[in-house]
Amino acid sequence: MAEDNTVRRPGGRSARVRAAVHHAVTELVAENGYGNFTIGDVATRAGVADSSIYRRWGSLESLTSDVAVTLLTTSSPIPDTGSLDSDLRGYAAGVARDISGPDGLAVLRLAMALSQGGAIGADARDRFIDERRRQIQQMLDRAATRGEKPPAALDILDHLLAPLYIRILFGMGPLTPDYIDSLVDRLLAAFHPKSVQR
Amino acid sequence: MAEDNTVRRPGGRSARVRAAVHHAVTELVAENGYGNFTIGDVATRAGVADSSIYRRWGSLESLTSDVAVTLLTTSSPIPDTGSLDSDLRGYAAGVARDISGPDGLAVLRLAMALSQGGAIGADARDRFIDERRRQIQQMLDRAATRGEKPPAALDILDHLLAPLYIRILFGMGPLTPDYIDSLVDRLLAAFHPKSVQR
Repeated sequence: MAEDNTVRRPGGRSARVRAAVHHAVTELVAENGYGNFTIGDVATRAGVADSSIYRRWGSLESLTSDVAVTLLTTSSPIPDTGSLDSDLRGYAAGVARDISGPDGLAVLRLAMALSQGGAIGADARDRFIDERRRQIQQMLDRAATRGEKPPAALDILDHLLAPLYIRILFGMGPLTPDYIDSLVDRLLAAFHPKSVQR
Repeated sequence: MAEDNTVRRPGGRSARVRAAVHHAVTELVAENGYGNFTIGDVATRAGVADSSIYRRWGSLESLTSDVAVTLLTTSSPIPDTGSLDSDLRGYAAGVARDISGPDGLAVLRLAMALSQGGAIGADARDRFIDERRRQIQQMLDRAATRGEKPPAALDILDHLLAPLYIRILFGMGPLTPDYIDSLVDRLLAAFHPKSVQR
Protein backbone atom coordinates (compact mmCIF):
# COMPACT_ATOMS: atom_id res chain seq x y z
CA MET A 1 0.00 0.00 0.00
CA ALA A 2 2.72 2.41 0.99
CA GLU A 3 4.68 1.37 -2.11
CA ASP A 4 1.68 2.12 -4.23
CA ASN A 5 1.14 5.56 -2.75
CA THR A 6 4.81 6.28 -3.09
CA VAL A 7 4.98 5.39 -6.74
CA ARG A 8 1.91 7.41 -7.61
CA ARG A 9 2.94 10.45 -5.59
CA PRO A 10 2.96 13.54 -7.80
CA GLY A 11 6.08 15.59 -8.39
CA GLY A 12 7.83 13.81 -11.20
CA ARG A 13 10.64 11.31 -11.33
CA SER A 14 12.89 13.07 -8.83
CA ALA A 15 10.19 13.09 -6.15
CA ARG A 16 9.33 9.46 -6.87
CA VAL A 17 12.96 8.41 -6.49
CA ARG A 18 13.26 10.33 -3.25
CA ALA A 19 10.10 8.73 -1.83
CA ALA A 20 11.18 5.22 -2.85
CA VAL A 21 14.67 5.69 -1.38
CA HIS A 22 13.27 7.09 1.88
CA HIS A 23 10.85 4.20 2.16
CA ALA A 24 13.68 1.70 1.59
CA VAL A 25 15.84 3.30 4.30
CA THR A 26 12.99 3.27 6.83
CA GLU A 27 12.37 -0.41 6.16
CA LEU A 28 16.04 -1.39 6.25
CA VAL A 29 16.66 0.42 9.54
CA ALA A 30 13.65 -1.38 11.03
CA GLU A 31 14.59 -4.79 9.67
CA ASN A 32 18.37 -4.84 9.90
CA GLY A 33 19.35 -1.99 12.18
CA TYR A 34 21.65 0.79 11.14
CA GLY A 35 25.12 -0.33 10.12
CA ASN A 36 23.80 -3.56 8.67
CA PHE A 37 22.98 -2.34 5.17
CA THR A 38 24.71 -0.42 2.41
CA ILE A 39 23.75 2.18 -0.17
CA GLY A 40 23.65 -0.74 -2.60
CA ASP A 41 20.96 -2.44 -0.50
CA VAL A 42 18.93 0.77 -0.46
CA ALA A 43 19.29 1.14 -4.22
CA THR A 44 18.18 -2.45 -4.87
CA ARG A 45 15.13 -2.16 -2.67
CA ALA A 46 14.15 1.25 -4.07
CA GLY A 47 14.73 0.11 -7.64
CA VAL A 48 17.20 2.87 -8.49
CA ALA A 49 20.88 2.96 -9.42
CA ASP A 50 23.54 3.24 -6.70
CA SER A 51 24.94 6.25 -8.54
CA SER A 52 21.65 8.17 -8.20
CA ILE A 53 21.87 7.84 -4.44
CA TYR A 54 25.55 8.81 -4.23
CA ARG A 55 24.95 11.81 -6.50
CA ARG A 56 22.00 13.08 -4.50
CA TRP A 57 22.92 12.27 -0.90
CA GLY A 58 26.67 11.59 -0.92
CA SER A 59 26.68 9.17 2.04
CA LEU A 60 24.47 6.81 3.98
CA GLU A 61 24.67 9.14 6.99
CA SER A 62 23.38 12.15 5.13
CA LEU A 63 20.68 10.03 3.47
CA THR A 64 19.57 8.70 6.88
CA SER A 65 19.57 12.23 8.25
CA ASP A 66 17.38 13.39 5.36
CA VAL A 67 14.93 10.57 6.04
CA ALA A 68 14.81 11.42 9.74
CA VAL A 69 14.27 15.15 9.14
CA THR A 70 11.55 14.42 6.60
CA LEU A 71 9.76 12.02 8.93
CA LEU A 72 9.86 14.52 11.76
CA THR A 73 8.86 17.56 9.77
CA THR A 74 6.15 16.15 7.54
CA SER A 75 4.54 13.68 9.88
CA SER A 76 3.32 15.89 12.71
CA PRO A 77 2.80 19.43 11.44
CA ILE A 78 2.86 22.19 14.04
CA PRO A 79 -0.57 23.84 14.30
CA ASP A 80 -1.18 27.59 14.34
CA THR A 81 -4.62 27.96 15.86
CA GLY A 82 -4.22 31.30 17.66
CA SER A 83 -3.82 29.89 21.17
CA LEU A 84 -0.99 27.95 22.80
CA ASP A 85 -3.44 25.64 24.52
CA SER A 86 -5.01 24.38 21.31
CA ASP A 87 -1.70 24.45 19.38
CA LEU A 88 -0.20 22.11 21.99
CA ARG A 89 -3.23 19.82 22.07
CA GLY A 90 -3.32 19.60 18.28
CA TYR A 91 0.42 18.98 18.04
CA ALA A 92 0.39 16.31 20.77
CA ALA A 93 -2.58 14.55 19.16
CA GLY A 94 -0.76 14.54 15.79
CA VAL A 95 2.43 13.12 17.28
CA ALA A 96 0.45 10.46 19.15
CA ARG A 97 -1.36 9.47 15.96
CA ASP A 98 1.87 9.22 13.98
CA ILE A 99 3.83 7.19 16.50
CA SER A 100 0.87 4.87 17.06
CA GLY A 101 0.89 3.90 13.37
CA PRO A 102 2.76 1.06 11.68
CA ASP A 103 5.91 3.18 11.19
CA GLY A 104 5.51 4.68 14.62
CA LEU A 105 8.92 3.74 15.92
CA ALA A 106 10.73 4.78 12.73
CA VAL A 107 11.80 8.16 14.11
CA LEU A 108 13.09 6.57 17.31
CA ARG A 109 14.90 3.88 15.36
CA LEU A 110 16.51 6.50 13.14
CA ALA A 111 17.51 8.62 16.13
CA MET A 112 19.14 5.60 17.77
CA ALA A 113 20.73 4.62 14.48
CA LEU A 114 22.29 8.05 14.01
CA SER A 115 23.49 8.09 17.63
CA GLN A 116 25.49 4.97 16.87
CA GLY A 117 26.91 6.45 13.68
CA GLY A 118 29.90 8.29 15.15
CA ALA A 119 30.55 11.97 14.47
CA ILE A 120 28.77 12.10 11.10
CA GLY A 121 25.72 10.35 12.54
CA ALA A 122 25.69 12.65 15.57
CA ASP A 123 25.88 15.69 13.32
CA ALA A 124 22.96 14.41 11.23
CA ARG A 125 20.94 13.75 14.36
CA ASP A 126 21.66 17.24 15.66
CA ARG A 127 20.41 18.73 12.42
CA PHE A 128 17.12 16.89 12.56
CA ILE A 129 16.57 17.70 16.22
CA ASP A 130 17.42 21.35 15.56
CA GLU A 131 14.87 21.52 12.76
CA ARG A 132 12.13 20.17 15.01
CA ARG A 133 13.14 22.43 17.85
CA ARG A 134 13.04 25.43 15.51
CA GLN A 135 9.46 24.61 14.50
CA ILE A 136 8.36 24.17 18.11
CA GLN A 137 10.10 27.42 19.05
CA GLN A 138 8.08 29.26 16.37
CA MET A 139 4.86 28.00 17.98
CA LEU A 140 6.10 29.21 21.39
CA ASP A 141 7.25 32.56 19.98
CA ARG A 142 3.81 33.14 18.48
CA ALA A 143 2.31 32.49 21.93
CA ALA A 144 4.74 34.93 23.57
CA THR A 145 3.84 37.57 20.94
CA ARG A 146 0.19 37.15 21.89
CA GLY A 147 1.08 37.80 25.54
CA GLU A 148 0.90 34.15 26.62
CA LYS A 149 3.68 32.72 28.78
CA PRO A 150 4.88 29.60 26.97
CA PRO A 151 7.15 26.90 28.38
CA ALA A 152 10.56 26.33 26.79
CA ALA A 153 10.94 24.04 23.77
CA LEU A 154 12.90 21.59 25.92
CA ASP A 155 10.02 21.40 28.39
CA ILE A 156 7.81 20.22 25.54
CA LEU A 157 10.38 17.56 24.69
CA ASP A 158 10.70 16.44 28.32
CA HIS A 159 7.06 16.43 29.40
CA LEU A 160 5.01 15.98 26.23
CA LEU A 161 7.05 14.19 23.55
CA ALA A 162 9.17 12.03 25.87
CA PRO A 163 6.21 10.38 27.67
CA LEU A 164 4.41 9.74 24.37
CA TYR A 165 7.50 8.16 22.81
CA ILE A 166 8.35 6.04 25.85
CA ARG A 167 4.77 4.78 26.24
CA ILE A 168 4.87 3.59 22.61
CA LEU A 169 8.40 2.26 22.94
CA PHE A 170 7.40 0.15 25.92
CA GLY A 171 4.16 -0.95 24.27
CA MET A 172 2.05 0.87 26.86
CA GLY A 173 -0.49 2.28 24.44
CA PRO A 174 -3.04 3.19 23.32
CA LEU A 175 -2.41 6.90 23.74
CA THR A 176 -5.96 7.98 24.58
CA PRO A 177 -7.20 11.56 24.09
CA ASP A 178 -7.63 11.80 27.88
CA TYR A 179 -4.04 10.78 28.48
CA ILE A 180 -2.72 13.25 25.90
CA ASP A 181 -4.83 16.06 27.34
CA SER A 182 -3.58 15.28 30.84
CA LEU A 183 0.01 15.73 29.65
CA VAL A 184 -0.85 19.11 28.10
CA ASP A 185 -2.79 20.14 31.22
CA ARG A 186 0.21 19.41 33.42
CA LEU A 187 2.62 21.18 31.10
CA LEU A 188 0.45 24.31 31.04
CA ALA A 189 -0.16 24.17 34.79
CA ALA A 190 3.53 23.77 35.57
CA PHE A 191 4.89 26.38 33.18
CA HIS A 192 2.01 28.71 32.50
CA PRO A 193 0.17 29.21 35.80
CA LYS A 194 -2.89 31.28 35.12
CA SER A 195 -4.05 32.39 38.53
CA VAL A 196 -1.80 30.65 41.06
CA GLN A 197 1.13 32.76 42.26
CA ARG A 198 4.11 30.77 43.43
CA MET B 1 37.08 -5.00 29.89
CA ALA B 2 33.46 -6.01 30.26
CA GLU B 3 34.39 -9.49 29.02
CA ASP B 4 37.03 -9.70 31.67
CA ASN B 5 34.70 -8.70 34.49
CA THR B 6 32.09 -11.09 33.25
CA VAL B 7 34.38 -14.06 33.13
CA ARG B 8 35.79 -13.41 36.58
CA ARG B 9 32.40 -12.84 38.20
CA PRO B 10 31.99 -15.20 41.17
CA GLY B 11 29.18 -17.74 41.41
CA GLY B 12 30.52 -20.77 39.62
CA ARG B 13 30.10 -22.06 36.11
CA SER B 14 26.35 -21.51 35.88
CA ALA B 15 26.66 -17.82 36.76
CA ARG B 16 29.58 -17.41 34.36
CA VAL B 17 27.58 -18.96 31.52
CA ARG B 18 24.63 -16.74 32.29
CA ALA B 19 26.78 -13.61 32.32
CA ALA B 20 28.53 -14.52 29.06
CA VAL B 21 25.22 -15.32 27.34
CA HIS B 22 23.63 -12.07 28.57
CA HIS B 23 26.62 -10.08 27.38
CA ALA B 24 26.44 -11.76 23.95
CA VAL B 25 22.72 -10.95 23.59
CA THR B 26 23.25 -7.29 24.54
CA GLU B 27 26.02 -6.98 21.96
CA LEU B 28 24.10 -8.77 19.21
CA VAL B 29 20.97 -6.66 19.71
CA ALA B 30 23.12 -3.53 19.49
CA GLU B 31 25.09 -4.67 16.45
CA ASN B 32 22.51 -6.54 14.39
CA GLY B 33 19.12 -5.59 15.77
CA TYR B 34 16.66 -8.11 17.10
CA GLY B 35 15.53 -10.72 14.59
CA ASN B 36 18.92 -10.73 12.89
CA PHE B 37 20.67 -13.33 15.02
CA THR B 38 19.96 -16.82 16.27
CA ILE B 39 20.55 -18.80 19.44
CA GLY B 40 23.50 -20.32 17.56
CA ASP B 41 25.05 -16.85 17.14
CA VAL B 42 24.61 -16.17 20.85
CA ALA B 43 26.18 -19.53 21.72
CA THR B 44 29.18 -18.92 19.46
CA ARG B 45 29.84 -15.48 20.86
CA ALA B 46 29.38 -16.58 24.46
CA GLY B 47 31.53 -19.67 23.94
CA VAL B 48 28.89 -22.13 25.11
CA ALA B 49 26.93 -24.95 23.44
CA ASP B 50 23.59 -24.21 21.75
CA SER B 51 22.02 -26.93 23.88
CA SER B 52 22.97 -25.12 27.11
CA ILE B 53 21.00 -22.10 25.96
CA TYR B 54 17.97 -24.09 24.82
CA ARG B 55 17.94 -26.05 28.07
CA ARG B 56 18.12 -22.97 30.25
CA TRP B 57 16.03 -20.42 28.38
CA GLY B 58 13.98 -22.39 25.86
CA SER B 59 13.71 -19.63 23.26
CA LEU B 60 15.38 -16.45 22.05
CA GLU B 61 12.38 -14.42 23.28
CA SER B 62 12.58 -15.70 26.81
CA LEU B 63 16.37 -15.26 26.81
CA THR B 64 16.00 -11.66 25.59
CA SER B 65 13.36 -11.02 28.23
CA ASP B 66 15.69 -12.39 30.93
CA VAL B 67 18.46 -10.07 29.74
CA ALA B 68 16.11 -7.06 29.76
CA VAL B 69 14.75 -7.82 33.24
CA THR B 70 18.27 -8.29 34.58
CA LEU B 71 19.49 -5.04 33.05
CA LEU B 72 16.56 -3.13 34.50
CA THR B 73 16.62 -4.66 37.96
CA THR B 74 20.32 -4.81 38.65
CA SER B 75 21.46 -1.63 36.97
CA SER B 76 19.56 1.06 38.87
CA PRO B 77 18.62 -0.23 42.32
CA ILE B 78 15.71 1.51 44.04
CA PRO B 79 16.93 3.34 47.14
CA ASP B 80 15.27 3.19 50.56
CA THR B 81 16.51 6.29 52.37
CA GLY B 82 13.50 7.09 54.54
CA SER B 83 12.17 9.96 52.44
CA LEU B 84 10.51 10.04 49.03
CA ASP B 85 12.47 13.13 48.03
CA SER B 86 15.86 11.50 48.48
CA ASP B 87 14.66 8.10 47.21
CA LEU B 88 13.59 9.77 43.95
CA ARG B 89 16.79 11.78 43.63
CA GLY B 90 18.96 8.73 44.27
CA TYR B 91 16.97 6.60 41.85
CA ALA B 92 17.02 9.24 39.09
CA ALA B 93 20.76 9.78 39.53
CA GLY B 94 21.35 6.02 39.27
CA VAL B 95 19.24 5.70 36.11
CA ALA B 96 21.01 8.70 34.57
CA ARG B 97 24.42 7.19 35.37
CA ASP B 98 23.48 3.82 33.86
CA ILE B 99 21.97 5.12 30.65
CA SER B 100 24.87 7.53 30.15
CA GLY B 101 27.32 4.62 30.10
CA PRO B 102 28.53 2.60 27.12
CA ASP B 103 25.59 0.17 27.32
CA GLY B 104 23.20 3.01 28.05
CA LEU B 105 20.83 2.34 25.22
CA ALA B 106 20.77 -1.42 25.79
CA VAL B 107 17.51 -1.36 27.74
CA LEU B 108 15.83 0.80 25.10
CA ARG B 109 17.13 -1.41 22.32
CA LEU B 110 15.84 -4.49 24.11
CA ALA B 111 12.45 -2.88 24.72
CA MET B 112 12.15 -2.01 21.04
CA ALA B 113 13.39 -5.46 20.09
CA LEU B 114 10.77 -7.19 22.20
CA SER B 115 8.05 -4.90 20.84
CA GLN B 116 8.86 -6.18 17.38
CA GLY B 117 8.81 -9.79 18.55
CA GLY B 118 5.08 -10.48 18.20
CA ALA B 119 3.01 -11.92 21.03
CA ILE B 120 5.87 -13.72 22.77
CA GLY B 121 8.06 -10.61 22.61
CA ALA B 122 5.23 -8.42 23.91
CA ASP B 123 4.63 -10.81 26.78
CA ALA B 124 8.32 -10.75 27.68
CA ARG B 125 8.37 -6.96 27.53
CA ASP B 126 5.30 -6.77 29.77
CA ARG B 127 7.01 -8.97 32.33
CA PHE B 128 10.09 -6.79 32.50
CA ILE B 129 8.07 -3.57 32.71
CA ASP B 130 5.85 -5.08 35.42
CA GLU B 131 8.88 -6.03 37.47
CA ARG B 132 10.25 -2.50 37.33
CA ARG B 133 6.86 -1.00 38.10
CA ARG B 134 6.54 -3.31 41.10
CA GLN B 135 9.85 -2.05 42.50
CA ILE B 136 8.92 1.59 41.96
CA GLN B 137 5.52 0.96 43.56
CA GLN B 138 7.23 -0.40 46.67
CA MET B 139 9.17 2.86 46.99
CA LEU B 140 5.92 4.83 46.64
CA ASP B 141 4.08 2.58 49.10
CA ARG B 142 6.81 3.13 51.69
CA ALA B 143 6.33 6.89 51.23
CA ALA B 144 2.56 6.57 51.65
CA THR B 145 3.07 4.51 54.83
CA ARG B 146 5.20 7.35 56.22
CA GLY B 147 2.36 9.79 55.53
CA GLU B 148 3.90 11.29 52.38
CA LYS B 149 1.73 11.77 49.30
CA PRO B 150 3.59 10.05 46.46
CA PRO B 151 2.83 10.37 42.75
CA ALA B 152 1.74 7.26 40.83
CA ALA B 153 4.32 4.88 39.34
CA LEU B 154 3.26 5.93 35.84
CA ASP B 155 3.94 9.58 36.69
CA ILE B 156 7.52 8.59 37.46
CA LEU B 157 7.74 6.86 34.09
CA ASP B 158 6.24 9.84 32.24
CA HIS B 159 8.06 12.72 33.93
CA LEU B 160 11.30 11.27 35.28
CA LEU B 161 12.36 8.20 33.29
CA ALA B 162 10.94 9.26 29.90
CA PRO B 163 12.82 12.60 29.73
CA LEU B 164 16.07 10.94 30.82
CA TYR B 165 15.73 8.18 28.22
CA ILE B 166 14.74 10.53 25.40
CA ARG B 167 17.57 12.97 26.16
CA ILE B 168 20.05 10.09 25.86
CA LEU B 169 18.30 8.63 22.84
CA PHE B 170 18.53 11.95 21.01
CA GLY B 171 22.13 12.49 22.14
CA MET B 172 21.16 15.53 24.23
CA GLY B 173 23.32 14.72 27.21
CA PRO B 174 25.08 15.10 29.52
CA LEU B 175 22.42 14.55 32.18
CA THR B 176 23.73 17.02 34.75
CA PRO B 177 22.84 16.79 38.47
CA ASP B 178 21.01 20.12 38.11
CA TYR B 179 18.88 18.80 35.27
CA ILE B 180 18.03 15.60 37.13
CA ASP B 181 17.13 17.56 40.26
CA SER B 182 14.89 19.88 38.25
CA LEU B 183 12.92 16.87 36.98
CA VAL B 184 12.47 15.58 40.54
CA ASP B 185 11.54 19.07 41.76
CA ARG B 186 8.80 19.35 39.15
CA LEU B 187 7.49 15.87 39.83
CA LEU B 188 7.24 16.58 43.55
CA ALA B 189 5.73 20.04 42.99
CA ALA B 190 3.12 18.71 40.57
CA PHE B 191 2.07 15.61 42.52
CA HIS B 192 3.03 16.32 46.07
CA PRO B 193 2.25 19.97 46.75
CA LYS B 194 3.47 20.77 50.25
CA SER B 195 1.87 24.08 51.05
CA VAL B 196 0.09 25.21 47.90
CA GLN B 197 -3.60 24.33 47.84
CA ARG B 198 -5.07 24.03 44.36
